[in-house]
Amino acid sequence: MKKYRLLTPGPTAIPENVLAKFAEPIIHHRTSLFEVQFKKVQDNLQWLFQTKQPVLTLTATGTGAMDATVTNLFSPGDEVITVNGGKFGERWTKICRAYGVKAHEIVVDRGAAVDAVAIEKLLSANPHTKAVLFQASETSTGTLMPIQKIVELCHKKNVLSICDGITAVGIFNVPMDDWGLDVLITGSQKALMLPPGLAFISLSERAYKAAESSKLPKFYFNLIKERDSQAKQQTAWTPAISLVTGAVESLQMLRDQGREALFAAHEKMAEATRNAARALGLELFSSAPSPVLTTVKVPASFSVDQGKKITKIMQEKYGVIITGGQDELAGKILRFSHFGYTDLFDIVNGISALELTLHELGYQVEFGTGVGAVLKTYQ
Amino acid sequence: MKKYRLLTPGPTAIPENVLAKFAEPIIHHRTSLFEVQFKKVQDNLQWLFQTKQPVLTLTATGTGAMDATVTNLFSPGDEVITVNGGKFGERWTKICRAYGVKAHEIVVDRGAAVDAVAIEKLLSANPHTKAVLFQASETSTGTLMPIQKIVELCHKKNVLSICDGITAVGIFNVPMDDWGLDVLITGSQKALMLPPGLAFISLSERAYKAAESSKLPKFYFNLIKERDSQAKQQTAWTPAISLVTGAVESLQMLRDQGREALFAAHEKMAEATRNAARALGLELFSSAPSPVLTTVKVPASFSVDQGKKITKIMQEKYGVIITGGQDELAGKILRFSHFGYTDLFDIVNGISALELTLHELGYQVEFGTGVGAVLKTYQ
Repeated sequence: MKKYRLLTPGPTAIPENVLAKFAEPIIHHRTSLFEVQFKKVQDNLQWLFQTKQPVLTLTATGTGAMDATVTNLFSPGDEVITVNGGKFGERWTKICRAYGVKAHEIVVDRGAAVDAVAIEKLLSANPHTKAVLFQASETSTGTLMPIQKIVELCHKKNVLSICDGITAVGIFNVPMDDWGLDVLITGSQKALMLPPGLAFISLSERAYKAAESSKLPKFYFNLIKERDSQAKQQTAWTPAISLVTGAVESLQMLRDQGREALFAAHEKMAEATRNAARALGLELFSSAPSPVLTTVKVPASFSVDQGKKITKIMQEKYGVIITGGQDELAGKILRFSHFGYTDLFDIVNGISALELTLHELGYQVEFGTGVGAVLKTYQ
Repeated sequence: MKKYRLLTPGPTAIPENVLAKFAEPIIHHRTSLFEVQFKKVQDNLQWLFQTKQPVLTLTATGTGAMDATVTNLFSPGDEVITVNGGKFGERWTKICRAYGVKAHEIVVDRGAAVDAVAIEKLLSANPHTKAVLFQASETSTGTLMPIQKIVELCHKKNVLSICDGITAVGIFNVPMDDWGLDVLITGSQKALMLPPGLAFISLSERAYKAAESSKLPKFYFNLIKERDSQAKQQTAWTPAISLVTGAVESLQMLRDQGREALFAAHEKMAEATRNAARALGLELFSSAPSPVLTTVKVPASFSVDQGKKITKIMQEKYGVIITGGQDELAGKILRFSHFGYTDLFDIVNGISALELTLHELGYQVEFGTGVGAVLKTYQ
């Protein structure tokens, strides 16, 4: 009878009405029935991405769309700049290098936002650079990147701005066309409140021009082929049909709420979580905290092993699933995600479980201090 | 209130109990809860593939696994033989060529099985060939390929045998280890009775050796990385979680039925469909008909436009979705699929709709002739 609560950076909780859609009989994709559904998804994705460009649906998870970006836009030997502010920024570097694209990597201190000046210097030092690849929000550290500044810089230097918005689109404001982003990506299991299995990617006209001269081989992930096919409401290969029909429902929920309200709700949940952490005497890990997830350091008195116990106890005893740090941050930070189908009371639950767990591990907690800070933020 | 009935080569109908699983709350993949589910899927996939090798789960559709096969096993300039007996065989050729792998292509007459002697000749003429890539059943023409003969030939010539078993695994007997296949692939929306979105692939030890020396770049589809990760019940990237949990249910159904019973049921449905077509005076298209789907020629008196109307009327008026021919076969053949969650009475429905439709289009039909042949096959 244990209830599970996901406060994780994907998958996130799925609304009950969306889950109910998945229990419906499957439709065939090469029918007008599918095309009508897919058109709704396409329209609402453009609204969510804030773009007039097509937003392509790929049957893969977010890493597939990152892979597709590199193989579709570049050629072996091309130079790019990658912003490595954590595990996901590092992934851009790894993908580029796997395909023989020369990545000038900026390694940013974990928990810090990248300094746009550092990117500008590197761009000046490497005049053949074709693009800057970065995250909107680095999920491994809970850090918001200076997206608009990076995009402006890219325009000034005439290079492509390529943004992994996997944990950004639908959470905070990243207006693709207004800011002039060249590539924006997200995945189904994030703000879209769906199971993992679909990735979404939009390219500017300028990015499609780059794609036309790309010499890296590709087949399953062929963005020009997908653009041409999806213009007729058909994917090049069989799509993950049930996730597409689920997206009809979940995207409509987002649209009904409205972008402004969505962004404000996430900002409020982030503020409440930060306030709760501070009230419990915990230090924030990121110096540029993201509205997507809040990272806090485990108490200074805790060993790495004790730090790892926090998420374990929260999950096994209380059914509250948050994530800890990855790789070198394991046992050192806690990551509370607050996006997608998540509200004030989910934050209350998460902080309640944290208070109980910290107490169990010997940390001094006056019960209600964290939760009180959450409520105070909302009143 | 129209009922839809899928007699299509994927997606196929999904059992109600499997659909119900998709309405359950999603679980997080980096938990022991997921790992326990994934282990069940892995075990039942090995049973279904009839192999001791791991069967890897990829978040992609079947074409993704075909792409992965080429990029993981070969290097630019490598030579292979591809068997093009239709649209899916042609896809092997296209994938190889997209990646700079030299494909010696055998183009087989549409509707005919490949002649193993032709492959042997081509292997002798091209001694540097590393592999033969073929379909177990070519879905675009409904043709069964001489799988075992091809594999024996590959062993004799010491080249890899790479089998697209997307519409074969779980439908008819392709014992991977017994026959010594090097690569076997399937997809979730076929015999596994799931929505599209997962592909499954198993490699022999010999195939992994080839993978170790492959020089084609890859990232999202990295089979060695997946093998190592999935040995610990974790996928390298976020998996399509809900489809994996659905697979726990659908694979158990297949296992409960048993392989022999599964294969016999499909053989019987195919026989019934062929008998119905003949009874209606329709000619079979394939000279080596597959137990997966039955292809029949539209009546000789019909124009291509009339031929195309058959599937349209069956779908729009009767809700029975079969598929017509693709590309140059459009309007010329009908493809009745009979696999996955399909039984005698689904065949009865399909043939009933066909009788009504042919009559409407002016073809002489004595109602019940086709359906009678179906019942007679079963009695």
